[in-house]
Amino acid sequence: MALQHNDLGDTVHHPFHDEDGDSLREECGVFGVIGARDAAAVTALGLHALQHRGQEAAGIVSFDGQEFHVRRGNGHVAENFSTGEAMAELPGSMAVGHVRYSTTGGSGLRNVQPLYAELASGGFAIAHNGNISNAMHLRSDLVQRGAIFQGTADTEVIIHLVATSRYPTLLDRFVDALRMLEGAYSLICTTKEGMIACRDPLGIRPLVMGHIPEADGKKGAVVFASETVALDIVGATFDREVEAGELIEVDQDGKVTSHRPFVEASSRPCIFEHVYFSRPDSISAGQSVYSVRKAIGQQLAIESPADVDLVIPVPDSGVPAAIGYAQESGVPFELGIIRSHYVGRTFIQPSDGARSSSVSRKHNANRALVEGKRIVLIDDSIVRGTTSLKIVQMMRNAGATEVHMRIASPPTMHSCFYGVDTPERNKLLAARMDMDAMREFIQADSLAFVSIDGLYRAVGENERKSKCPQYCDACFTGDYPTRLTDLAERTDPSQLSLLPKTEKVA
Amino acid sequence: MALQHNDLGDTVHHPFHDEDGDSLREECGVFGVIGARDAAAVTALGLHALQHRGQEAAGIVSFDGQEFHVRRGNGHVAENFSTGEAMAELPGSMAVGHVRYSTTGGSGLRNVQPLYAELASGGFAIAHNGNISNAMHLRSDLVQRGAIFQGTADTEVIIHLVATSRYPTLLDRFVDALRMLEGAYSLICTTKEGMIACRDPLGIRPLVMGHIPEADGKKGAVVFASETVALDIVGATFDREVEAGELIEVDQDGKVTSHRPFVEASSRPCIFEHVYFSRPDSISAGQSVYSVRKAIGQQLAIESPADVDLVIPVPDSGVPAAIGYAQESGVPFELGIIRSHYVGRTFIQPSDGARSSSVSRKHNANRALVEGKRIVLIDDSIVRGTTSLKIVQMMRNAGATEVHMRIASPPTMHSCFYGVDTPERNKLLAARMDMDAMREFIQADSLAFVSIDGLYRAVGENERKSKCPQYCDACFTGDYPTRLTDLAERTDPSQLSLLPKTEKVA
Amino acid sequence: MALQHNDLGDTVHHPFHDEDGDSLREECGVFGVIGARDAAAVTALGLHALQHRGQEAAGIVSFDGQEFHVRRGNGHVAENFSTGEAMAELPGSMAVGHVRYSTTGGSGLRNVQPLYAELASGGFAIAHNGNISNAMHLRSDLVQRGAIFQGTADTEVIIHLVATSRYPTLLDRFVDALRMLEGAYSLICTTKEGMIACRDPLGIRPLVMGHIPEADGKKGAVVFASETVALDIVGATFDREVEAGELIEVDQDGKVTSHRPFVEASSRPCIFEHVYFSRPDSISAGQSVYSVRKAIGQQLAIESPADVDLVIPVPDSGVPAAIGYAQESGVPFELGIIRSHYVGRTFIQPSDGARSSSVSRKHNANRALVEGKRIVLIDDSIVRGTTSLKIVQMMRNAGATEVHMRIASPPTMHSCFYGVDTPERNKLLAARMDMDAMREFIQADSLAFVSIDGLYRAVGENERKSKCPQYCDACFTGDYPTRLTDLAERTDPSQLSLLPKTEKVA
Amino acid sequence: MALQHNDLGDTVHHPFHDEDGDSLREECGVFGVIGARDAAAVTALGLHALQHRGQEAAGIVSFDGQEFHVRRGNGHVAENFSTGEAMAELPGSMAVGHVRYSTTGGSGLRNVQPLYAELASGGFAIAHNGNISNAMHLRSDLVQRGAIFQGTADTEVIIHLVATSRYPTLLDRFVDALRMLEGAYSLICTTKEGMIACRDPLGIRPLVMGHIPEADGKKGAVVFASETVALDIVGATFDREVEAGELIEVDQDGKVTSHRPFVEASSRPCIFEHVYFSRPDSISAGQSVYSVRKAIGQQLAIESPADVDLVIPVPDSGVPAAIGYAQESGVPFELGIIRSHYVGRTFIQPSDGARSSSVSRKHNANRALVEGKRIVLIDDSIVRGTTSLKIVQMMRNAGATEVHMRIASPPTMHSCFYGVDTPERNKLLAARMDMDAMREFIQADSLAFVSIDGLYRAVGENERKSKCPQYCDACFTGDYPTRLTDLAERTDPSQLSLLPKTEKVA
Repeated sequence: MALQHNDLGDTVHHPFHDEDGDSLREECGVFGVIGARDAAAVTALGLHALQHRGQEAAGIVSFDGQEFHVRRGNGHVAENFSTGEAMAELPGSMAVGHVRYSTTGGSGLRNVQPLYAELASGGFAIAHNGNISNAMHLRSDLVQRGAIFQGTADTEVIIHLVATSRYPTLLDRFVDALRMLEGAYSLICTTKEGMIACRDPLGIRPLVMGHIPEADGKKGAVVFASETVALDIVGATFDREVEAGELIEVDQDGKVTSHRPFVEASSRPCIFEHVYFSRPDSISAGQSVYSVRKAIGQQLAIESPADVDLVIPVPDSGVPAAIGYAQESGVPFELGIIRSHYVGRTFIQPSDGARSSSVSRKHNANRALVEGKRIVLIDDSIVRGTTSLKIVQMMRNAGATEVHMRIASPPTMHSCFYGVDTPERNKLLAARMDMDAMREFIQADSLAFVSIDGLYRAVGENERKSKCPQYCDACFTGDYPTRLTDLAERTDPSQLSLLPKTEKVA
Repeated sequence: MALQHNDLGDTVHHPFHDEDGDSLREECGVFGVIGARDAAAVTALGLHALQHRGQEAAGIVSFDGQEFHVRRGNGHVAENFSTGEAMAELPGSMAVGHVRYSTTGGSGLRNVQPLYAELASGGFAIAHNGNISNAMHLRSDLVQRGAIFQGTADTEVIIHLVATSRYPTLLDRFVDALRMLEGAYSLICTTKEGMIACRDPLGIRPLVMGHIPEADGKKGAVVFASETVALDIVGATFDREVEAGELIEVDQDGKVTSHRPFVEASSRPCIFEHVYFSRPDSISAGQSVYSVRKAIGQQLAIESPADVDLVIPVPDSGVPAAIGYAQESGVPFELGIIRSHYVGRTFIQPSDGARSSSVSRKHNANRALVEGKRIVLIDDSIVRGTTSLKIVQMMRNAGATEVHMRIASPPTMHSCFYGVDTPERNKLLAARMDMDAMREFIQADSLAFVSIDGLYRAVGENERKSKCPQYCDACFTGDYPTRLTDLAERTDPSQLSLLPKTEKVA
Repeated sequence: MALQHNDLGDTVHHPFHDEDGDSLREECGVFGVIGARDAAAVTALGLHALQHRGQEAAGIVSFDGQEFHVRRGNGHVAENFSTGEAMAELPGSMAVGHVRYSTTGGSGLRNVQPLYAELASGGFAIAHNGNISNAMHLRSDLVQRGAIFQGTADTEVIIHLVATSRYPTLLDRFVDALRMLEGAYSLICTTKEGMIACRDPLGIRPLVMGHIPEADGKKGAVVFASETVALDIVGATFDREVEAGELIEVDQDGKVTSHRPFVEASSRPCIFEHVYFSRPDSISAGQSVYSVRKAIGQQLAIESPADVDLVIPVPDSGVPAAIGYAQESGVPFELGIIRSHYVGRTFIQPSDGARSSSVSRKHNANRALVEGKRIVLIDDSIVRGTTSLKIVQMMRNAGATEVHMRIASPPTMHSCFYGVDTPERNKLLAARMDMDAMREFIQADSLAFVSIDGLYRAVGENERKSKCPQYCDACFTGDYPTRLTDLAERTDPSQLSLLPKTEKVA
Repeated sequence: MALQHNDLGDTVHHPFHDEDGDSLREECGVFGVIGARDAAAVTALGLHALQHRGQEAAGIVSFDGQEFHVRRGNGHVAENFSTGEAMAELPGSMAVGHVRYSTTGGSGLRNVQPLYAELASGGFAIAHNGNISNAMHLRSDLVQRGAIFQGTADTEVIIHLVATSRYPTLLDRFVDALRMLEGAYSLICTTKEGMIACRDPLGIRPLVMGHIPEADGKKGAVVFASETVALDIVGATFDREVEAGELIEVDQDGKVTSHRPFVEASSRPCIFEHVYFSRPDSISAGQSVYSVRKAIGQQLAIESPADVDLVIPVPDSGVPAAIGYAQESGVPFELGIIRSHYVGRTFIQPSDGARSSSVSRKHNANRALVEGKRIVLIDDSIVRGTTSLKIVQMMRNAGATEVHMRIASPPTMHSCFYGVDTPERNKLLAARMDMDAMREFIQADSLAFVSIDGLYRAVGENERKSKCPQYCDACFTGDYPTRLTDLAERTDPSQLSLLPKTEKVA
């Protein structure tokens, strides 16, 4: 989604670094609908269900048969798209929307998607989930040829490639552009002819398709979304995934055409969608995310049992795995950590004893439950390890006599370059330490991660096929399924800072 | 907290009616600290932990030894009190804060607490949790005598009573004022001499006391708060509850004095704090709220078993009772309903099939889990019944073959006049229907509530002592522990509308 | 309008000190209308015409026969009262409005007028132009008796006096309150019975009365306003001034009753209204302000001729006097100083030669005209003298060979305590220096003020009757027509700081 | 400055139509400085002095030796660029700024100048005053070749032409771009090498050059601005005009180089700058604007005398001509119309007699002066005639017995396509009616315009040389000095609507 700026020599500085530094974040969710009355209102609901995939900004582009209409804003979907006034600005029966994290600094609104441009062929809107790993290389080329970029998002490269392609039809120009890309992309585009949805040849990021049934039983509006929960909220039926390397065209009459513009390849969807990103009530790569997470917890209980009194999830993402762990082990599942729903900004800290960490503002120990007990904590992953440490300490302060930690994913040892916000590698605990040092760092009595094969078993495979892995698991294995041109070129970012550092709008 | 306007003849129109109409809401949380560096920053954290008790507005008044400083705002604590600028406006080592729901319409800021006034004796700030049930009567008297009210909050009555009392000392004037009140009040006040915390003679609303230990082991700043979770977040130790009818004075040197200005009475704390209002990690009336809720679930499982495949909580407040029910019954606990964290405004609804209810924006069925299963849902209470109906339907749409409902409280049949937002009586499902009609209304296969004695057992009593009940349970029993003067007088509210209907500030 | 805080020992610290310190400012304008459809829209227009009397905040209270409606805001009338939404909040056929300067610091909105209170007798709104010179004394009394004040404005004292008066009717209570006041007040009040307009016994501040003729020739809505320009803009006919010491009641049927509640006294209207405050197109005390200003210029030309090439006004208030001076002297009137219309905030100054003073942002020399010429500048008054100095320098820098200064008022040597913003006395140039020192200070070749008798001649009198002056001219003569109790008591303001220093609303 | 959209068949719909429809407006002012500490603060002051040339939006781009910094906002310069925070965002010793009118609708900020782009050669900022009359033609070409436009401003065409030029140096590419343009442009550009200022071959729009002298007498920072008043405010000395067809380069060391990239042509500066746009204290085309306006008034008095009692200017732009008319005729100059400084939004109109027009909110008759008098009104121009009509009526209502109108410009009969906001031709009163019909329309007793030769005499010429006019006077004569390609092509605007109609940012 944004260009990688490598200004640290050997180590890779990831574009989406997390200020707190201790969680992984999906950058984007996309949603599109064609053939619905009030398409923008449908899209707003769909984006709301995808809010967990990006909370910093949101945008919708609608088309009313004549004109495109654009509205974008910082903040949650509900803040920007819940009013009648907002919807009145977005008339039409086709709309595409996007939720995202903003990059740090600068005037994010230039980069808020969907991006829109008037090409010679007419209006073109694009919403992107993923990351183009040769975007800087392509961009540098385009600028040399006179292209003027509006923002820093890698997605804009796609528009310029389409605009400057010499092929006659828009679809040809679009495919011409896609063939130059490497990396991960699930795209929803709109032109005045209709909607195009496509997934990169490996299908790294998710994209599903459904339709809103009409009262008379006819197959109504067609819907595309990052996750099935966005179909649920708008009352749409889940039809199927957009397949890896597939490009689906839907015209204004609802006619659906599937294209296969790429050389066939085995798909490699992101396995981390199961572990963390997707909502538990979504169906991802044909699996119930909730069931997969419970199964991971069961695998963990089999692989790494613990002699304890209570199984305690780190809320909220650790809950399904903890239920699985408890059911498999027979140890009671209890809420030993209570999560506040009112998290947001960092507070000014009092200067004396009353200080409170970001962890303690989000989580509080259920002291009456935990006191005097041996517990096992279940969490989804460890990134930098600082949160795990604070939570272990919180449990000990509340009187837990033993604190064991079980993690529902293998050790996260590598950065993601396909649209997931991971810290640079040397900040990842598992890249810096072996298992015992990690355990010591987080001050747990024991520490275990689910094995890579255990994870594959939880998603229904017998094992990881190392020759041809069924999923993208590069964050665990370092096995990146595409070339990483920008990274390889280690381009000096100062030559490529394409926009001024400061742009504020009063 | 606000005056009751009775404009419906026989039925009582509750001041805090809920727009959605199907939940009960605590109106307020209070917090105070004296003797802390950066008292306002401590208070902001404390209020943040009490955010579940009131999300519409917040305020803090600090005192720096010379001057009082006031800052109030609509919205969450974090939105108003997280910045350095905000804290810089609130210097001093003593502060009192408040979170609240706003009344509908009007310029809420006049009513946002703590209220502050300059009396002849100096500055006086007051934060109130509860409801004065003779406030309109007292107010009418005061206005006749020339008092000019700024807002509509019942709390302002207390200030005017203090201001016009003829006793010589402020403490005497304050007690003189309290003796005229009926109803529920947990108050934290500040004057330039120090802090006063007190609870009404029955101790209906909670109030706890603690202190922030200093590095050298000395007993540091004294803290008062509605719940113990607010002590936890600021690193304070829980000392004890402020007792029913107790008034505690803390002077600027930290000296603590307890007074007993009222005729002794048995305490009657609100039992609904256990069922719903308090956070599960709080200690309320000496009990762990989480444990009580689990115990209610266990009582429910004993009293009303269900032959089902899964125990499913209605998130989030039904979770502890569901864990108790599952443990007692041996039926697996599973997350069959997934809750979105991004709830807020109501969206404009698309005009066709893609409509989405407020329930479906907040909750989504975990279809893969529920399909083909017999389930029991555990919820904390039923108010109007509309939410229960939608959730039962959602489960059936997701393929559940049987849907049983168990409620972790007795039927809510009466309005609360002590600071809890309940709809008027004729809107309460349990006041309108018998058990079978209720079951039919919510379309469940079976429906059961915990018994009143089961509830008392869950809080550690053998039974409810009907002659002298240990708790205020008026919402279940109609047994109101105080006079309800304003209600009895059925005063015509048009004579008493003390402020213009519209006040907007541009 | 606001309390005087005296914290400088001997010198009087005026409540409305001007940050720039070099102009006098009227604090307020008032407007009321009864019997008009859309009374608030009429009032908004009227206030807009009075905007020069107060630019910091504005407010309107309307009454629709049942309810009072209040809207107040910081900024200009057009910013707060030009939209349909704003007007929809203010229904009814009676309205009263106010424009004002805010006091420095603090949450001005508490003090923005009209003030409104619900008294035992019903709603009461009041708009005030003037200053009560015993407000602190009265307020201190009221607080001792238990009154709780909302703001710091002296106007609030009047409401409390009305609320606590023991007389049976509202009119009696209102007169009872007025009799306790000393100082200057032109008031417009509304109750549900109708409108009351009154002027203090000396009629220090202006107040005029008119009516909006109806299509059928009937005498329609009755209007009160600070100046006749507010009648002009709403299409009202000017009937007469409200007389000194007169109280006019207009009931909801349009019946007008005049009362004379005070001992008869000779009126002493503020003569400075002619010199500076009123708009030149207003009729003040029976005189055209424009004609009076021209006449002052003519007097000046007679008393203090100058052998020059050009007569140049200091824009904009010096223009009419300059026209008079030019016509009398036969020297051409020319625009030697061009005023920017886009004045407002202070800019950050560049650190090098490019600095620009507040004077040069507001005024620029017309160099091509002035170069090589002898000029006389005509200004309305000299307060601190700093602006005069900068303007003289600007003319010299532009090449003027001689710069003479003539002032269209006598030397301003005393502070005003009747609602005009003057600096404390020791800041007034004319209180600090004799004529020659002043001339030297402003670096003019010559300096002259109109004589006090010249000023009286310009307003149509033969001379000032020193035994019984026809006008309040205390700022020139120190002859204050009322007692100044608060000033005499030199009350320690720290005991009376009736509200916290800081109140911010997020 | 913006593209012309022709959607009215034969008549030309001007891009900058005025909502009120009855004034002409300059669209832009530009300012640049190189070599000054705090260049942005200098630029903010300069723009403030040019505020009369564009009040809707403002922007500044600065360069600190390494990076460009951009800040733009809607509203006045003072609202956006007066704070220290704003200036801190704009570090560096070179800056360029712009004030403008926004086009109706749409998200103006995309179009607010200076525009900025990162070209292959580095950062490039451009501020433009004028209008490119073949912009749509060029834009259409560029889009066909794959260029993606951000906004609708014609200025953006220039950037794309520079970006896609094949010449080796930036200066060559810039000249290559300019040679494709037709129309009016005064440009200030910045690159990391320095500043470029240039004027179109006819010098239609103004541009002056000056420098800020340093303390040690060295020639300091170089300044460019639309008018000399912007030099005055920053303490700069006026050096000379940038000549028609001249391109001036200033490098970071202050070296100034003049280029002549175009075929030599006689200059044709806009004569309307004298009549209306420029501030009277500016020097335009070597003439004092104030003196020229007075001279026009004198010509008018000679050509069209009136037997009246008073000469009354229509404020403010009619004042200098009225002074000239009065001096020539010997009739006294008087302020018969008082202008309010607090104009802005349109107010909601009361539904009854109290209505007030936009004219009466801005102007009020000085009735005491005018009553019973014969008057001549002096105004700068007549556009649609509606304002003139209202002002004549206002004078009659105030009692004037005869109202004559004299206009300080020839009849405005043609639209401007060089950066001045004129209504489409069929809205211009002088294009629709002959002299007598116009007089009747505005209800004056007589009406006269200055003759075209009279106007040329006022600017110091003997007459208009019709073969080779000394000025652009197309609005009076229809003699357009350049081709008008876009107009000639009458391109269907729907094909070229390059951006969505609606773009709102929350």
